Amino acid sequence: MLKIISLIVSGILISQTIPAQSPEQMILQKFTEENTGSILEEYSRFLYLPNVAADPAGQQKNAAFIMEMMKNRGIQHIQLLNATTANVPPAVYGEVKVPGATQTLIFYAHYDGQPVNPAQWAKGLEPFVPKLYTNAIDKAGTNIPFPADGRYQKDWRIYARAAADDKAGIGAILNAYDALVKKGLTPGCNLKFFFEGEEEAGSPHLHEILEKHKALLASDLWIICDGPIHQSGKKQIIFGVRGDTHLDLTVYASKRPLHSGHYGNWAPNPALLLAQLLSSMKDENGRVTIKGFYDDVTPLSPAEQKALQEVPSVDEQMKKELGISNSEMKGLSLNESINLPSLNINGIQSGNVGKLASNQIPTYATAVLDLRLVLGNDWKRQQQKVINHIQSKGFQVLDYEPTDEERNKYAKLIKVVPGADGVNAQRTSMDLPIIKKVIAIVKSTTKDQVVLQPTMGGTLPLFLFEQDLNAKTITIPVANHDNNQHAENENIRIGNLMDGIVMMGLLMLFR
Amino acid sequence: MLKIISLIVSGILISQTIPAQSPEQMILQKFTEENTGSILEEYSRFLYLPNVAADPAGQQKNAAFIMEMMKNRGIQHIQLLNATTANVPPAVYGEVKVPGATQTLIFYAHYDGQPVNPAQWAKGLEPFVPKLYTNAIDKAGTNIPFPADGRYQKDWRIYARAAADDKAGIGAILNAYDALVKKGLTPGCNLKFFFEGEEEAGSPHLHEILEKHKALLASDLWIICDGPIHQSGKKQIIFGVRGDTHLDLTVYASKRPLHSGHYGNWAPNPALLLAQLLSSMKDENGRVTIKGFYDDVTPLSPAEQKALQEVPSVDEQMKKELGISNSEMKGLSLNESINLPSLNINGIQSGNVGKLASNQIPTYATAVLDLRLVLGNDWKRQQQKVINHIQSKGFQVLDYEPTDEERNKYAKLIKVVPGADGVNAQRTSMDLPIIKKVIAIVKSTTKDQVVLQPTMGGTLPLFLFEQDLNAKTITIPVANHDNNQHAENENIRIGNLMDGIVMMGLLMLFR
Repeated sequence: MLKIISLIVSGILISQTIPAQSPEQMILQKFTEENTGSILEEYSRFLYLPNVAADPAGQQKNAAFIMEMMKNRGIQHIQLLNATTANVPPAVYGEVKVPGATQTLIFYAHYDGQPVNPAQWAKGLEPFVPKLYTNAIDKAGTNIPFPADGRYQKDWRIYARAAADDKAGIGAILNAYDALVKKGLTPGCNLKFFFEGEEEAGSPHLHEILEKHKALLASDLWIICDGPIHQSGKKQIIFGVRGDTHLDLTVYASKRPLHSGHYGNWAPNPALLLAQLLSSMKDENGRVTIKGFYDDVTPLSPAEQKALQEVPSVDEQMKKELGISNSEMKGLSLNESINLPSLNINGIQSGNVGKLASNQIPTYATAVLDLRLVLGNDWKRQQQKVINHIQSKGFQVLDYEPTDEERNKYAKLIKVVPGADGVNAQRTSMDLPIIKKVIAIVKSTTKDQVVLQPTMGGTLPLFLFEQDLNAKTITIPVANHDNNQHAENENIRIGNLMDGIVMMGLLMLFR
Repeated sequence: MLKIISLIVSGILISQTIPAQSPEQMILQKFTEENTGSILEEYSRFLYLPNVAADPAGQQKNAAFIMEMMKNRGIQHIQLLNATTANVPPAVYGEVKVPGATQTLIFYAHYDGQPVNPAQWAKGLEPFVPKLYTNAIDKAGTNIPFPADGRYQKDWRIYARAAADDKAGIGAILNAYDALVKKGLTPGCNLKFFFEGEEEAGSPHLHEILEKHKALLASDLWIICDGPIHQSGKKQIIFGVRGDTHLDLTVYASKRPLHSGHYGNWAPNPALLLAQLLSSMKDENGRVTIKGFYDDVTPLSPAEQKALQEVPSVDEQMKKELGISNSEMKGLSLNESINLPSLNINGIQSGNVGKLASNQIPTYATAVLDLRLVLGNDWKRQQQKVINHIQSKGFQVLDYEPTDEERNKYAKLIKVVPGADGVNAQRTSMDLPIIKKVIAIVKSTTKDQVVLQPTMGGTLPLFLFEQDLNAKTITIPVANHDNNQHAENENIRIGNLMDGIVMMGLLMLFR
């Protein structure tokens, strides 16, 4: 009765998963329902803090805010873990020693966010001014004030950069611990917290930080709270991630912009040269044509193959939702696609379009490629395959702006700047005892299937934990899948953040 | 003697062409040398006036400024010629009746300029703040103040939007008449002046204006002062122009931006789809592969073919100057290329590049194409050829944003917006008596060859003069060829403006 009254009071619909709930889950769920207002008040203040790499001062404010959150929750040994390199966004660390506990779980999330282009955000939205909507904007959600009475609907969204990726992870983890403390529930294991500040930049200094603080960071398992839940709405556990690296391409033509009438079709057009190069990288079935691109991929184990088969197909749902009729890789499902290395154009630009368009032949054309990697790929090797392909298409590849001599010598000139911050893929075995326990806990929170993903499409520097700490990692996301992470209009669904708090709390009871 | 002294005083080098000079030319040359300062003082004030289509108020200020220039020169019947459509930048008209004159020349230039993207202009430059440089910026020119003593070097440049295209035409024409008046030289024919305000927008209302003011605009020949002189530095007369029209292309993919990790190589990438489409439009030799693209081209007459052969080749010079090693159309010279219809990418954009790049799959990719036309082409027919090609590549072509239903139905969706303001090509016969006279005058101003171009690469709506007024046109440019018209860092070489004044003055003495 009490519970039901509280549910009505907090105005949140009863979750379908209630029948499967353990007493601890009911306690944690009730806590989130009764404290949604205060949780989101703090969370909104967190989202007001710009957290992009271009703004180191903003990054520091985020780190300070997290330390304050830890302090308020009575977490111990709160400190910033710096890299050996100076002026690097530090990781924020804290821990909780539990008398008698024999094992240690360390919870990971990151506080930095992707770059923002405010001009691209929807009308009324700014990346660092969190706004509450009654639903996703593209599902006719409308902006409403944060309610004074703390009554929220699970389907409401908060829009802001990093609302999902990955301040949601920090919010879920630290509020979960808060809930345990306030509800008198004792963790079943020692807890450590590690919040990174450079994940979206490719974690260029994570290796240094892990190396430097090896002893402090000892654990039995890293629980990575990042990325979205399954598109089916089901919870999921991810055992591996794709790697990632980039290449910046700039094709050069005339040194000065030319009148397209006086020189059109005599002077080379850099946008056409770039278009020809990019289109040479994939065939009509969406398969990358770059020599050896799919080589050195480690095949999935039988258990992983079985899990992959059991991942619900969301292809048709996603096509409908995204407004597309075909997948790029003909004949492959989304799950199959993300278990392959990928090549994607993040952006392309040459001359001007729209109102600024003018009758000119541009001087250069530029594109940014990102390469996703799977187990077996090496990011530098993968970059080199692309560079070899570009050369095979008759381009003179430079890593600097061409000289006049080079311009007059080579018909096709390109500057290729390979990203220096590549990250390889990683995969943890599903058969380890500790992993099986974690799977059981997550399964206990829902009547639904828990999706077991051998590999997540996204990228985290998980291979470093293995390499530097000989540590195991497992990824348990909380964010809604349609959160627009990495793009404009990023948002978190309230229900996902609250469910995440409950799930992280139950994981902290692990013994 | 006097002359030489004056040359030294004005600090301008003696032109090589002096031995060929007629008395009238010497008088006009002396006038420009002695009045460079005051001419450029007025010209700079003209360049301060923004003249882009997006700024109607600015366009009006330009028209008013021209009327004032005419008034100060005693030109008669000064008036704005409006289109039948309201709120269209008017043409500025004025005339000079010469007692006993039997023929009428009408001088054309345009006061509107191409759109500007100030961010792309060189450091220290703003499109509408004219700056004086000691040479072209890419030839190590440096910024200097406008000299108080009125002493200028011919190689100095003034940087500003429209400094060359086409306020230089207006400056040359009106200062030429000023010189005649002040030096007591009587024009040999009636003079009319017609300065258009919508040329860079494709002259969408010129037809209306010509129709409406047919009687007023009667003449024996239109002298069009626009475009650059020949790249060899030789003067040239152009007997025809290429036509021009545009297409805006937008390829659509997912309705919302996607994380390139979670969806990379499953969700279609619009930049890749656009790249594939654009690269399908030309073969490896730079020839347009669109079906029928080169059909319906009217061949050159024997006289035109001969003239074309005599056009000095500037290919190697231009390649060196532009920093390119190959022409786009293999085996064709610049002169041959501009006598063919062309397809050029003015701009392309999708997602973000550089610092704003993020790991996303963009939602759309857009490109602006311009098509240049030669005699025989029809701009609507040429647009349709491109649209047919796009359809032949499996694209569903729309002229609006796709609906959800269309997104889910078609694998390849594109919005094609054909420019509504196409202009066909035009060519005037070299064999007409009046044309022969004009050629003789221009030849009298130089010992050098005068280049006779059957077709200029650029575009002017010359076909309208023939169609609406049954008038003949001939184009005599004054601007330096490296003036960056239509792009950033547009500039006029002082010497070219002054030579233009002299040449226009001699043409006004035509009988």
